[in-house]
Amino acid sequence: MRTSEYLITTLKETPADAEVISHQLMLRAGLIRKLASGLYTWLPLGLKVLRKVENVVREEMEAAGALEVSMPVVQPAELWQESGRWEQYGPELLRIQDRHSRDFCLGPTHEEVITDIVRNEIKSYKQLPLNLFQIQTKVRDEIRPRFGIMRSREFLMKDAYSFHADHASLEQTYQVMHRSYSNVFTRLGLEFRPVIADTGSIGGSASHEFHVLANSGEDDIAFSNQSDYAANVEMAEAVAPAGERPAPSADMAEVATPGVKTIEDLAVFLDVDAATTVKTLVVAGEEEGELVALVLRGDHSLNEIKAEKLAGIANPLQMAEEADVRKALGAGFGSLGPVGLSIPVIVDRSAAHLADFVCGANRDEVHLSGVNWERDCPLARVEDLREVVEGDPSPDGQGQLQIKRGIEVGHIFQLGTKYSEAMNASVLDENGKSVTMSMGCYGIGVSRIVASAIEQNHDDKGIIWPAAMAPFELVIVPLNMQKSEAVAECAQSLYQQFRKAGVDVLLDDRNERPGVKFADMELIGIPHRIVVGDRALAEGQLEYKGRRDEEPALLARDDTFDTVMAKLGR
Amino acid sequence: MRTSEYLITTLKETPADAEVISHQLMLRAGLIRKLASGLYTWLPLGLKVLRKVENVVREEMEAAGALEVSMPVVQPAELWQESGRWEQYGPELLRIQDRHSRDFCLGPTHEEVITDIVRNEIKSYKQLPLNLFQIQTKVRDEIRPRFGIMRSREFLMKDAYSFHADHASLEQTYQVMHRSYSNVFTRLGLEFRPVIADTGSIGGSASHEFHVLANSGEDDIAFSNQSDYAANVEMAEAVAPAGERPAPSADMAEVATPGVKTIEDLAVFLDVDAATTVKTLVVAGEEEGELVALVLRGDHSLNEIKAEKLAGIANPLQMAEEADVRKALGAGFGSLGPVGLSIPVIVDRSAAHLADFVCGANRDEVHLSGVNWERDCPLARVEDLREVVEGDPSPDGQGQLQIKRGIEVGHIFQLGTKYSEAMNASVLDENGKSVTMSMGCYGIGVSRIVASAIEQNHDDKGIIWPAAMAPFELVIVPLNMQKSEAVAECAQSLYQQFRKAGVDVLLDDRNERPGVKFADMELIGIPHRIVVGDRALAEGQLEYKGRRDEEPALLARDDTFDTVMAKLGR
Repeated sequence: MRTSEYLITTLKETPADAEVISHQLMLRAGLIRKLASGLYTWLPLGLKVLRKVENVVREEMEAAGALEVSMPVVQPAELWQESGRWEQYGPELLRIQDRHSRDFCLGPTHEEVITDIVRNEIKSYKQLPLNLFQIQTKVRDEIRPRFGIMRSREFLMKDAYSFHADHASLEQTYQVMHRSYSNVFTRLGLEFRPVIADTGSIGGSASHEFHVLANSGEDDIAFSNQSDYAANVEMAEAVAPAGERPAPSADMAEVATPGVKTIEDLAVFLDVDAATTVKTLVVAGEEEGELVALVLRGDHSLNEIKAEKLAGIANPLQMAEEADVRKALGAGFGSLGPVGLSIPVIVDRSAAHLADFVCGANRDEVHLSGVNWERDCPLARVEDLREVVEGDPSPDGQGQLQIKRGIEVGHIFQLGTKYSEAMNASVLDENGKSVTMSMGCYGIGVSRIVASAIEQNHDDKGIIWPAAMAPFELVIVPLNMQKSEAVAECAQSLYQQFRKAGVDVLLDDRNERPGVKFADMELIGIPHRIVVGDRALAEGQLEYKGRRDEEPALLARDDTFDTVMAKLGR
Repeated sequence: MRTSEYLITTLKETPADAEVISHQLMLRAGLIRKLASGLYTWLPLGLKVLRKVENVVREEMEAAGALEVSMPVVQPAELWQESGRWEQYGPELLRIQDRHSRDFCLGPTHEEVITDIVRNEIKSYKQLPLNLFQIQTKVRDEIRPRFGIMRSREFLMKDAYSFHADHASLEQTYQVMHRSYSNVFTRLGLEFRPVIADTGSIGGSASHEFHVLANSGEDDIAFSNQSDYAANVEMAEAVAPAGERPAPSADMAEVATPGVKTIEDLAVFLDVDAATTVKTLVVAGEEEGELVALVLRGDHSLNEIKAEKLAGIANPLQMAEEADVRKALGAGFGSLGPVGLSIPVIVDRSAAHLADFVCGANRDEVHLSGVNWERDCPLARVEDLREVVEGDPSPDGQGQLQIKRGIEVGHIFQLGTKYSEAMNASVLDENGKSVTMSMGCYGIGVSRIVASAIEQNHDDKGIIWPAAMAPFELVIVPLNMQKSEAVAECAQSLYQQFRKAGVDVLLDDRNERPGVKFADMELIGIPHRIVVGDRALAEGQLEYKGRRDEEPALLARDDTFDTVMAKLGR
């Protein structure tokens, strides 16, 4: 492609309303343009990247045996009523009426539609397993669309749905999809982690998210520095310190702590490490009016998702009101502790490992020091209650946890029978008995991958595309092509040579200053650049620069094609 | 692909609500399934066809220098208000509100959005011409969706929009697109005609429709039996009979015609050919209360679109009320004629060529015979007023017109400045002066092509795909593969051989009776079939049948690959 026949519309200024770097660079490089809040047009350069991502996703889905379908964007309300989600789904579900005042929605996801199709078409276990996918525009009416295409109202998604006669078959396909997803992100050249995830509102029994690691990510990912273990921090298991709990060495004693309300206050006031204190939180129990105490080490944080899944605790988690706590326990939030408590107590694994610790005395402005489990208070129930922190042992026993930010670009779920049961999707098994199908669902945010790649790969000059996603692999920049016949001829002939070799090459034949061309091509992020200039050419040389290189290098004109082909991995 | 790993869901019965053959066959062959009125899911087999069509369209657009973009489906009302179409467009425009009660619509077309993008990005004539296209799901809330995907509420469309600094450049790109469209339909193996069309509500100065010829088409196409001339019957020029008008040979005489109301009555009553009579219609003139008489040969029909475009006539065309006519002319509809009329008269070219004709006398139940122009009544204004009929001379002077039914699958328009003027889309020209851009727009109904191909190519067994659109080019059908090792081995090895040669081949490895397999593959319309059977194989033979062949032919096992490759055109 020649720039003169292409649409290059770069911006010098960073648009004011773009908060994150990928949004800024996608606007500046002319990949997208905003139509309205959360609605973007993909310009030719951006769409070229999007299509490359889409094709990798399609190839890997097909290699995994999934079959492509295409379902409507507009979906009838009846199916959502059947699954129960017409009521459950919030206002992100864009509900519309047609000219006959019938209810429809714009599909944010297609579990209902695909289940309807499969229950009509598939009658026997012999036709299973079946894995159907589509790559399609989805609509979610986000309350606050932001970060460009990262959280937009229209986006391109690959969604796949698998159907099975039994759970073992679902597990098998789930593993296949896990591998396919890893293949996709590996081929795209992204640093990513598949992480154990919460199944959330979609429901089901097991789930992994695929995160592209980037500082601007919205999620915290905990992963081992020595193994494959990775989990969303919400889901990462917090392991107790190794070894036995130390034996008591101090006597329990009361300490007056006037004005001390927080763990930080307490650590300063007593001049102790917060890690040697415990804090006691009170939440609603499962039964109406019941309270439960949760005890964690002073320097740790409660993981609400872990807590609300425990037996005996209200789900969703509900922190107790201070007035109720004072009435039941005789003290306010700052002075609670596990000694002599009259309500059920759940102790976090790390707090349970402490000896000689400090805690509230259940009297306002009084604490206890030298407290020990079992000697001073019972240790009836120990659970994993806390958020992991960096340096925690990895739950798989290999290495320590690191925490980095990630951008969720894929999510796979074992749905089980949630939808198939609600919608009566069954087949006859080998004994002629009707069984409810098991389902899996598997999403990839195709457009979001483009933004996440930029978040992970950029510098102050612009985007640095991984090879598989670059809109063009190589740009040839002739200098003063309009004036120098030698330059024009060399640039054109190289351009044709790379084109014929199947390279996605751009010839920047615009009549612009070299500085403008260089800046544009670096902003756009083309991985390889050849400059054809009069002076170097006169000495039989061309200039080559990789997008990450500090300085250009001179190549002999006659070696250039072979050298650059090698750099392109051809 | 193996059928055991694919989704083949054919139906034996013709679904009751499918009116046209393409709809019936697409359901029966398992290409699509209905989700709701006018909303269809494309199953793997159907989507495979759709993608082949889409790719041909994309390749031809790119070859024509158009650049692909992707605009949102959801569009803000503001742009449609700016162009004026928010009010003009009927209820096919599906209007919606987001969670903040802001107005949007689901795009049935994208003139407003693309004009908004281009007016922001393009500032100079040097950046023009620019031709941008997308292949995208469109939504139109049809009042009565029917014929399956032929007239559905969601459909896949290729829409392109070109921008120009002057009209000459628009003309040039329009010609390029005309050729591209012809290439698309030629490559797809369809019998089609580019026809001169009305610009209708989209507006603009010139327009062609591309029609796939099929008996079930909704449009009548007039085309020459000796040249390229083709036009929508609405637009086809009706040429006067050759030669001079014959000289008068009869005297004008009054005839009492009691009870005669229509031309048919008159022809029977007087025992004359309707072609020797004229009828006089009265329509509203341009000025309030004004009437105009339109005179046509008795056997011809008024073409309302031609009439309303004429100076002096109200647009849209408005037939006069009989009471007003009687008041102004002294007679009712059945007895009007051009002799002695007090209102402006426009005479159709063919009526103007008559001599000694019969017409109403402008007195109820009285007609005149032997009437002649100029001798008996003036012939002030002659225009093309009528619909063409089969046998008319072709307007280009070559051959005669035939009329066939067609399905509109493409439409190209010279929009001119309709949208760019309303939306202030201008560039600086070479003198630094601001000029409004000229625009063209070019649509192809990608999903509709699939249905039209079936309407044109089918028999009582099912679909007969043109090679370029077939979901699979070749099917290998082993008989009793589960029992005969020789059959299984031969089928598998042939399958691998064709696969390696890049052929899109299907191996029907289902454990079904031969009759079921043959019927399915003929219904699905796969162009070439190889049957591997025990008996023939024992004699070193395989059976080949083209989808249009009456009978299968035997091929030597060892020649089969080469022979079939040749039939595939490889």
